[in-house]
Amino acid sequence: MTDFSRTRDLFHLPDGVVYLDGNSLGPLPKAAGARVVAMMADEWGGELIRGWNSRGWMDMPSRVGDRIGRLIGAPAGSVVTGDTLSIKVYQALASALDMRPERKVVLSDTGNFPTDLYMAQGLLRSLGRGHELKVVAPEEVEAAIDDSVAALMLTEVDYRSGRLHDMKALTAKAHEAGALAIWDLAHSAGAIPVDVAGAGADFAVGCTYKYLNGGPGAPAFIYVSPKHADRAVPALSGWLGHEAPFAFDPDYRPGAGIERMRVGTPSIIALAALDAALDAWEGVDMADVRTRSIELSERFIAEVEARCPDLVLASPRDPRQRGSQVSFRSDNGYAVMQALIAEGVIGDFRAPDIMRFGFTPLYLDMEEVVRAAGILEEIMAGRLWDRPEFMKRSKVT
Amino acid sequence: MTDFSRTRDLFHLPDGVVYLDGNSLGPLPKAAGARVVAMMADEWGGELIRGWNSRGWMDMPSRVGDRIGRLIGAPAGSVVTGDTLSIKVYQALASALDMRPERKVVLSDTGNFPTDLYMAQGLLRSLGRGHELKVVAPEEVEAAIDDSVAALMLTEVDYRSGRLHDMKALTAKAHEAGALAIWDLAHSAGAIPVDVAGAGADFAVGCTYKYLNGGPGAPAFIYVSPKHADRAVPALSGWLGHEAPFAFDPDYRPGAGIERMRVGTPSIIALAALDAALDAWEGVDMADVRTRSIELSERFIAEVEARCPDLVLASPRDPRQRGSQVSFRSDNGYAVMQALIAEGVIGDFRAPDIMRFGFTPLYLDMEEVVRAAGILEEIMAGRLWDRPEFMKRSKVT
Repeated sequence: MTDFSRTRDLFHLPDGVVYLDGNSLGPLPKAAGARVVAMMADEWGGELIRGWNSRGWMDMPSRVGDRIGRLIGAPAGSVVTGDTLSIKVYQALASALDMRPERKVVLSDTGNFPTDLYMAQGLLRSLGRGHELKVVAPEEVEAAIDDSVAALMLTEVDYRSGRLHDMKALTAKAHEAGALAIWDLAHSAGAIPVDVAGAGADFAVGCTYKYLNGGPGAPAFIYVSPKHADRAVPALSGWLGHEAPFAFDPDYRPGAGIERMRVGTPSIIALAALDAALDAWEGVDMADVRTRSIELSERFIAEVEARCPDLVLASPRDPRQRGSQVSFRSDNGYAVMQALIAEGVIGDFRAPDIMRFGFTPLYLDMEEVVRAAGILEEIMAGRLWDRPEFMKRSKVT
Repeated sequence: MTDFSRTRDLFHLPDGVVYLDGNSLGPLPKAAGARVVAMMADEWGGELIRGWNSRGWMDMPSRVGDRIGRLIGAPAGSVVTGDTLSIKVYQALASALDMRPERKVVLSDTGNFPTDLYMAQGLLRSLGRGHELKVVAPEEVEAAIDDSVAALMLTEVDYRSGRLHDMKALTAKAHEAGALAIWDLAHSAGAIPVDVAGAGADFAVGCTYKYLNGGPGAPAFIYVSPKHADRAVPALSGWLGHEAPFAFDPDYRPGAGIERMRVGTPSIIALAALDAALDAWEGVDMADVRTRSIELSERFIAEVEARCPDLVLASPRDPRQRGSQVSFRSDNGYAVMQALIAEGVIGDFRAPDIMRFGFTPLYLDMEEVVRAAGILEEIMAGRLWDRPEFMKRSKVT
């Protein structure tokens, strides 16, 4: 059984803050600062260029990738970190389209995060071969999978509503139709149990600054199914994905397996912070995280619905169909969220009317969830608006 | 007049080390650790998600870009940081080819760093429109510029020999032929005076972990000439290059000017280290850096040639035709470099036979240069090989 009081103690949380935005940016792991300082002072400062070998910097993207792999059901050697999620989406989609040259449809949905769609638009424009990016409503995805589809490209958990796609079923449907499946795990990795290998995903990508707590703009990751990894063509063919980077060949030859998905020289400082953040996941069972996440979010929904009748749940009511976040709609959503933040309850707002709250069992407990609902009630009832300290703060935020 | 004793004091240099590899990875700026810790503890730890606005993280890529711009002759608002150099090369070349759709040749040279060639190969393969990557010898570039060329893509300073291209003349030649010019400043920025605007460069890219001392894998930068910036199509069209990232539009609309060259969410930790490193350039005149760099490297060549008759200069003899590094050839180059490193003189080796030495006036002085040459002499003369401490160390290195 995972000990969440132990994990909670691993994070720095400012006094008076209830942090319900770990789905956007995880908090600072207490160990991260010291780890980064040690990397900078001892490794960079002391070893200088030698650190690439003597301190294992060169292998860090794979080593850290394997740690993430454990959380998403990926076998060792199938995940590599680096770049940003946008770049990794591009690589996954480019590789998939290269493997289905005769097909012209990329199927996605309106619940996908915009950068995934933007990167696809940029890629398809570059290709100039008449591909179509078909974007349907989430509930229409399954029916839209047919033999015109080269790649199904979805974010498993909707960034606004928290709605959870059935990765296994949709991947199977895609495969039946001869398409490949690309899953964006931005709101899944560290949030819910994921089994990319068991689901048969062809590619998966994700970021590490949300539930994995790697810090603002922390490196992304990419998983390529071992059955494709030695055939996938990485459109972004950088030197660290080369079979022999230090041979300085004039011609690109892709490295073995997942290594070819590396591009340029990764930030070792950023990887050190991420590596420290991943320590918090040692001894954590994702099934326990899921159980606790549902307890926390179900209680939040019950409290909010009892206290704030004007707020409308924007997430699926069935917790099995949600990731680890809950959203409510409000016409005054932006102002209400600003008021919440001013009171120390940090969630976020997504246009036009969505207030998002993330539930992160590693550092969030039930008392905080109930307290947050109580403060939301006070704000919705107008009882905090005339307090002088809020009036003052609200001008700033 | 730049005070190089002041700048030297800004860097941490291990005792007993003569660091002649700042052209590969600059040393740790003393201020960087504290800056990164402050960013992590106060900004990430204290502000959490709010830091994107309250601490200006969102604008950091442009703000840091402007600081680099000052060192390369780029006007404010024309440089943005982020990603890796490989990614920025891709964006620059994709944009250039988009602006010359009727032309099919990308002209580069054998002195270009391999990742530039690899990224071009990946891009041209994706485009699938019969483009040719034409790679000629450096001295043949000028004659190879003709009206078939869409983009001239060169690294200004050769990573092996240090040979310096004439950016202004070649750019003018490219423009006369109707081509665009892309310059990789990896070995130029912070090494020599650069004037991208004065030279009329269309695009320039570079990394910040060499002469700019941003740390291993520090963020890259891209310059787009203001005359193109609002027309350039960034193939890698990520959400932070969108006109309104937080509108969460389903369709990509490029941001104004250089902002469109942003892609995904940048590492703020890595940017904080780079920002601290750039403080060392305040009050530094690049003309003084150039003068001092030539003094140091000319002295090194003279000392080495006098002491080590078996070594052959692999760099141009005329300092005006070199960047800020010097290379010597030796059949035993690898072993000799290992021996040098074991003695505390850190340069590097590039296959098949090149020993590289970088000259970085910000933290290197004449006494060290002479001392390094003396140690090289001892090694070449075989006088160190039988010393027990070297015998021992050489097994490790």
